[in-house]
Amino acid sequence: MTARIALGISYLGTAYQGWQSQPSGATVQDHLERALATFAAVPAIATVCAGRTDAGVHGLNQVVHFDAPVARELFSWVRGVNRYLPCDIAVQWARAVPSTFHARNSARARRYAYVLLESPVRPSVEAGRVGWVFRPLALEPMQQAAQHLLGEHDFSAFRAAQCQAHSPIKTLYRIDITRRGPYWRFDFEANAFLHHMIRNIMGCLIAVGQGLRPPSWLAEVRDARRREVAAPTFAADGLYFLGPRYDAELDLPERTPAFDWLPL
Amino acid sequence: MTARIALGISYLGTAYQGWQSQPSGATVQDHLERALATFAAVPAIATVCAGRTDAGVHGLNQVVHFDAPVARELFSWVRGVNRYLPCDIAVQWARAVPSTFHARNSARARRYAYVLLESPVRPSVEAGRVGWVFRPLALEPMQQAAQHLLGEHDFSAFRAAQCQAHSPIKTLYRIDITRRGPYWRFDFEANAFLHHMIRNIMGCLIAVGQGLRPPSWLAEVRDARRREVAAPTFAADGLYFLGPRYDAELDLPERTPAFDWLPL
Repeated sequence: MTARIALGISYLGTAYQGWQSQPSGATVQDHLERALATFAAVPAIATVCAGRTDAGVHGLNQVVHFDAPVARELFSWVRGVNRYLPCDIAVQWARAVPSTFHARNSARARRYAYVLLESPVRPSVEAGRVGWVFRPLALEPMQQAAQHLLGEHDFSAFRAAQCQAHSPIKTLYRIDITRRGPYWRFDFEANAFLHHMIRNIMGCLIAVGQGLRPPSWLAEVRDARRREVAAPTFAADGLYFLGPRYDAELDLPERTPAFDWLPL
Repeated sequence: MTARIALGISYLGTAYQGWQSQPSGATVQDHLERALATFAAVPAIATVCAGRTDAGVHGLNQVVHFDAPVARELFSWVRGVNRYLPCDIAVQWARAVPSTFHARNSARARRYAYVLLESPVRPSVEAGRVGWVFRPLALEPMQQAAQHLLGEHDFSAFRAAQCQAHSPIKTLYRIDITRRGPYWRFDFEANAFLHHMIRNIMGCLIAVGQGLRPPSWLAEVRDARRREVAAPTFAADGLYFLGPRYDAELDLPERTPAFDWLPL
């Protein structure tokens, strides 16, 4: 009798070829599955995640599920597995979940944050952890532009060519823009996101924030539904997958300590 | 006719063997001096810094001075030199200073911050950037203990054997302790610090915060003036050199954008 277990994972994506397993074995999923198998002393353990992140994208509360082939105390799946993970990946929590729980299919929404440094000087202590603009940004035009993307839309204009989603129609619940000193933070929540969708939206919002385009341009780009009309894909560095949202009755943690590590 | 120039530097210490030049060439000073010389197209440029940091210790506003062998616009010493620096080191500002200015000798005070994660789980996205305790800390006993160190004292108990300071007598102006979620921040300001002084004080404050020692123990350790009675040297990872303070009339920047990168 196996038990289904959900884990919350925090990781810095800089050193990894994204989340999803690759023949190279150099992805976050590869490291996690090797650590789980080593800890459980079995040949392999397969995991399913809530949201695959690209190379260089970070995760603060990525959620995975797997079927435990051996019985262990729940916190052992945290402490024991962390012993076999690199220093920039750590399991934060473990919970028993119903066998019907599915990390991806059960997720009602996903949250991401993009952190941006606005400075005449490039990043240093926060290299790899922020996007960077040297030209100043204006808040209000970006907020106006973001309004054009809220709600249910065909997001084909913001979709990477290699995107595997069944449909380009997604529902964007919010884009909140805040600032602390030279750092900007953009919070996104949607039922799901297309490949590169946030980085493509960021490229467009920055063009508006720097006065290169009017806020209404976002409506034009959206309606054109062609990738060529949007801005270039912005850097992966400042993108954080904050994690999925599940039904409240599952009572899974929606934060990890790393949430307070971001400057705002 | 050479002009004396002061630079403010931010760096992540994780990848470097400390500040001070070594035969290995793998220190922050080595990288900076090579970048300066390359930019100025001269064989070498020597720098003097405000405070030498150990391996693994970070700098947010390290200040150096040097005598420019060639005339360049001031901001070129920022943008031009950054082109030759690794991604985790960046010059933040450049100012012309009087020829009597000396980055170390002119400094009236130095500031450091120590950032600590209190969590049952080790760091991940902030690995190398925070110290870590899994046992909870109590604020008030640590604040009481810190009182015993304020003012002028012989800090021999907190001094590394290899310390090169002329005197162990220093004046500690403040230790402020703040918290945001699972992160603690300890702010130190003194006229100068001995080698390992903050990491040794941190070991003691944590022992008090975890209830292993009473606050009055810090007075005993201080008065013993022997390194053996204090706690072990705490990890370098969470230590940030915030920078020196100079006479206000010099009008040198006391902050860099990286100050807002810390979570509190």
